[in-house]
Parts: sequence; structure tokens; C-alpha cells
Amino acid sequence: MNEFDFIRHYLSSNNTDDELLHGIGDDAAVVRFSPDFDYHISTDMLIAGRHFFRDIAPDDLAYRILAVNISDMAAMGATPKYILLSAGLPKLDKKWLDLFFASLQKVLKEYHIKLIGGDTVKGDFVFNITIIGETPKGLGLKRNGANEGDDIWVSGKLGLAAAGLALEKQKHNQNNSFRLPEKIKQQCIKQFLRPTPRIELGKELLTMAHSAIDISDGLLQDLGHILQQSQKSAVIYFDQIPSLSELKSCADYPQWILSGGDDYELLFTADTTKSAQIEEIAYECCIPVHKIGTIIQQDESVLYRVFECENGREIQIKNSGFDHFTDD
Amino acid sequence: MNEFDFIRHYLSSNNTDDELLHGIGDDAAVVRFSPDFDYHISTDMLIAGRHFFRDIAPDDLAYRILAVNISDMAAMGATPKYILLSAGLPKLDKKWLDLFFASLQKVLKEYHIKLIGGDTVKGDFVFNITIIGETPKGLGLKRNGANEGDDIWVSGKLGLAAAGLALEKQKHNQNNSFRLPEKIKQQCIKQFLRPTPRIELGKELLTMAHSAIDISDGLLQDLGHILQQSQKSAVIYFDQIPSLSELKSCADYPQWILSGGDDYELLFTADTTKSAQIEEIAYECCIPVHKIGTIIQQDESVLYRVFECENGREIQIKNSGFDHFTDD
Repeated sequence: MNEFDFIRHYLSSNNTDDELLHGIGDDAAVVRFSPDFDYHISTDMLIAGRHFFRDIAPDDLAYRILAVNISDMAAMGATPKYILLSAGLPKLDKKWLDLFFASLQKVLKEYHIKLIGGDTVKGDFVFNITIIGETPKGLGLKRNGANEGDDIWVSGKLGLAAAGLALEKQKHNQNNSFRLPEKIKQQCIKQFLRPTPRIELGKELLTMAHSAIDISDGLLQDLGHILQQSQKSAVIYFDQIPSLSELKSCADYPQWILSGGDDYELLFTADTTKSAQIEEIAYECCIPVHKIGTIIQQDESVLYRVFECENGREIQIKNSGFDHFTDD
Repeated sequence: MNEFDFIRHYLSSNNTDDELLHGIGDDAAVVRFSPDFDYHISTDMLIAGRHFFRDIAPDDLAYRILAVNISDMAAMGATPKYILLSAGLPKLDKKWLDLFFASLQKVLKEYHIKLIGGDTVKGDFVFNITIIGETPKGLGLKRNGANEGDDIWVSGKLGLAAAGLALEKQKHNQNNSFRLPEKIKQQCIKQFLRPTPRIELGKELLTMAHSAIDISDGLLQDLGHILQQSQKSAVIYFDQIPSLSELKSCADYPQWILSGGDDYELLFTADTTKSAQIEEIAYECCIPVHKIGTIIQQDESVLYRVFECENGREIQIKNSGFDHFTDD
């Protein structure tokens, strides 16, 4: 059983009603508490050694645990409003906590989010965040709306966070070395430690995209969630996936852009007639977007196929992304 | 710095508005999403070895992590509606998970609560629950409303869970033995493993009580939160604290009833003129309630004093309750 089987088997339910519009299975649950707004609620647990290195700087840690949760709101097109934070900490070290909370407050302020609940326990660096965001009633980007013929888009550049993680692992002597220019290294590490949740873009896409998700576990795995829930398949053009040209010479480049998580860019699908409008929105948000493929009719034997445009060759996929129970 | 200093220093804020009625500092935050209802939201992290024994049966564990969160709603007088569950588990063991989730679903069904969000990670038995409940607009039991002259009430019987914990520690060879009849032992262990959240009583008290809290960290410590937030002091009559007569011969009895946590009974204050009505409500809910003291004007030198009624002697208090960072 992997993480996703687990969620399907134990957590999923179709137990919705007029108030609970959507339960488990998307980036957030959707509750219509109010006549005018829908509320999007999600929860995430982050554990030392799995989601961050134990010696991560407290300010980077605070940034990261917030950013990955704010990104879930971006994937719903929601405006984040409230968070609740639980922290398991080995001790209450004032110097560490001052840095952690200064960074946390800075991010909360930047996104106009209020911390409304908390719990602290003695534990081995484990955090849980619950985040609540809102959209106007009836809106909200889902995973299950992709249509045949939709363009598949991604924001930003992929593979940087995966390269950043590999560089961090080098520091911790966990894998072999590879060479990159110092400036590129810094850019990749920054993308890994401090990804930017695409809140503005998500909100602008509310009336434009048919489906959306944030890329936390790897492009193909997260695309897979959209395809499964929309009952579609997809064709992806490998050379159109945006990345840094300097990364292309690295042996792990294909794995980084196809299966590397942690970029927290948006992956979304939209009607081909919306291309110009989407380009314009992205320009206004100062976030580059790229078309990387097409949604096709469901092929029950294969969720997605990845081709190289130049020569039409198909790339064989071994590992689609990150599973919290089977990977290390 | 202890847990409560930490919360005051880093988490508290008066950053409320028309929508966020109450932030950190009570059993739950209160958000007015809707024109008719207020929503009460709280979060709790539970860690193996601190909040439960590592070898706890999966069905008892599921019950317990839900009950302690549902109890926060009882303390607000709220009807629990939704939960989000994060679970850090060492492995996905189907047999264990089947028992855990069968118990979880049973409790959710009993309280008409929907599981709307979840996260699973590989970790060392750590759980986080966020719970959302509702009250009619403007209602909700707070910690800060105790008035001078209020009677102080508790539901149920105190000290059983603390005795149950001591018995469980005996099993795990963590402390000295003490003797109790087998039936009493079972009752105490049940109170520790399967406390009953007082949802019905909390709801009935909405228009009756001036302040309320659930006793999770010990009577005196939780009373202390009410007193600090209400800027009052209190007198408690030791012999009026309801418990099991069989426990009174145990050396730790005073500590169990004054400082022992985990009973999850309600502690509340109300005008003396409401006594008969409160007795009636409690009778209808089938939950015994007892007056154990009186709210007095704030005495800045001492939050509470505990007396023996029989001889008027004052009991000296050493340790008021459980602090997650200083106790073991």
C-alpha cells in the first residue's frame, strides 16, 4: 500500500452535501459556510528528515512549512486567510524560536494570513499546518475538470527544487557530486528552500482553467492526479517543459523535471482558445507560463506519454514522483 | 520558557476583526464565516510516548485522538462538524489501519462529524487533528467570562484518568504499584483511554455558563486559564470535588484530582441563581455536575486557594498541572 492507496482506501468519501461541497481528494476540502464564499481547507504534516533537513535554518523552515501550505490554496485559486500551526519541538530555545517566528510572521503578513490556532508539544521537529482560504461562491480550481483537447500548462521553471535538494544532499554527503555554476546552485537551493506559492496566478485562473494542482510531488505524479480524477490521459512534450538550460547537462535532469517535487509551480489545463488570455494574465502576474502538452481521451492502459519533440521519440518513465512511504 | 509562555509570546495576537472574532488563547478560534453561525476551530498534535503509549491498541488510539479534540468543541459549547487528520506512521500496516479507521469512523458517525482532509507521512506515530464546530451566531463558551460570585462547576468525576494513567504506567513499569479493586482499575483505565467529550452538556450551557474549559491538563491549571483570562481568583473546596471514593485512600489522590489531566470533563462557571437550571440540564444530559467553589475578586498574589471544608484547613499546592515541555 502506498500513500495514495491509503488515502483512497481510508480517507476518501463521497459524503458531501449542501455545505460540504468537496471532501478529501483535491488540494483542499471545500465548505460553503457562507452564502457568498466557499472556504478551502487543507492540512499538511512536515517531519524532520523527510520534508526538511534537521539542520535547516529556522527562518527557512518557517518559510517552507508556510509556503507549501499556501501553495495548496494557490492550486485551488483561493485567497489564503487563516492558519493553525502545531509544532513538535525538542525544546523551547528562545533564539531559535525568535528566528522561526520572525520569518513566520513575515510570510503571514506578506500574504495577509492570520494565525488563529496553535499547539506545541515536545517532539522531534514535526509541524502541522491547517490552512483556510476563500474563493467567491462556486469558483475554485479542481483536479477533476480537465477536458479532452485542453492545453496543459505549467508556471515558472521545473527541476530547480529537485536540483536544489540534490545539492543539499551533497552538503549532507548523501549522494554523488555534480557540477553547476555557483549562481545556478544558489538559484536551485533557493527554489528548494523558498518556493513561491502562485497565489495571484491561481486567483486569476479561477474563471480560465479547467483543472489545476500544485507540483509538490513531481510533474508526472501530480499530472496523474488530474488525469485520474478527470478520467483523461495526456501527451507531454519533454522539450517544452521549462527549466534552466544549465541543468540540462546533468545526468538527473529528466528525473528532476518529470519526477522532482518541491517546485510548487502550478500545473493547470485550459481550453486552447484561452491561450492568449492566459499568456496575458501570466504577464501581469510576472510569472512565466508554458504549454507542455495536451489532454487526450482516457487511455486506460497509460495515463500519460512523454515525447521528445525534436525526434518524436517516446521517453520511458520509470518512477513518476514522490511517495511518502516508499521513497527515501 | 514553558508551553504557556511560548503560546503567549509567539502565538497570541489581538488581530481580530468582524470575521475573526477570537484568535489564539481559548479552546478554539472563532470565525464568523456566515451571518447565522460562528465557527470554532482548534488544532491538536498528539505524539507517541507523550500523549499515548506506543503500544496502545489502534482502536483506543483513534478514539482518544478524536475525543480530546471533540472535547475542545464541548468546551466552546459547539457542535463538532468537520475534522482534518494528519498521521505520521512508521509503516502502512493494513491490519493496524483497519482497526484504527474502523474505530475512527465509529466515533465520527456517533458525533456526526465529517473527515474532510488528511495527510499521511512516514513518521514515528504522530497525529494532528484540526476540528471545526459551530454555534449559533454570538454564542460560544469562552474562558474569559467568569464573574465574581459565580459558582464553579465540574461535570463527571475527576482523578479517574490520572489514576488510569498511573495504572497504565504500572503496566509499563514506570512507577510504583498501588492497590485498587479490579473493577475500579478498569473504570479508571477506561476513563483514561476513552474519555467522553461533553458535547451535549456544552451545548446546553451556551446560554447558562459565563465561562468554560475542558479539563485536559488538570483542574487547577485549567481553572487557572479561566481565572487569568477573566482576571479573577477562586476558592475551591477540596472535599466537594467529585471523584471515586475508592481512590481517596491512594497517596496520589490529591494530585490526581487537582492536577491530573485527561479527564476531559467540563469546568464552568455560572451565576448562583442558575443552580437549579444547571442541575436540571445535567440531569437531562445524564451527566452529574458538582459545585466545587466560587469565583472571587482578583487577588494578584494568588490565583486560587484550596480548602478542606471539614476543618477549614488550606491545602498547599505544589504543582498545578501538566506542562508539555517541563513534565514527563
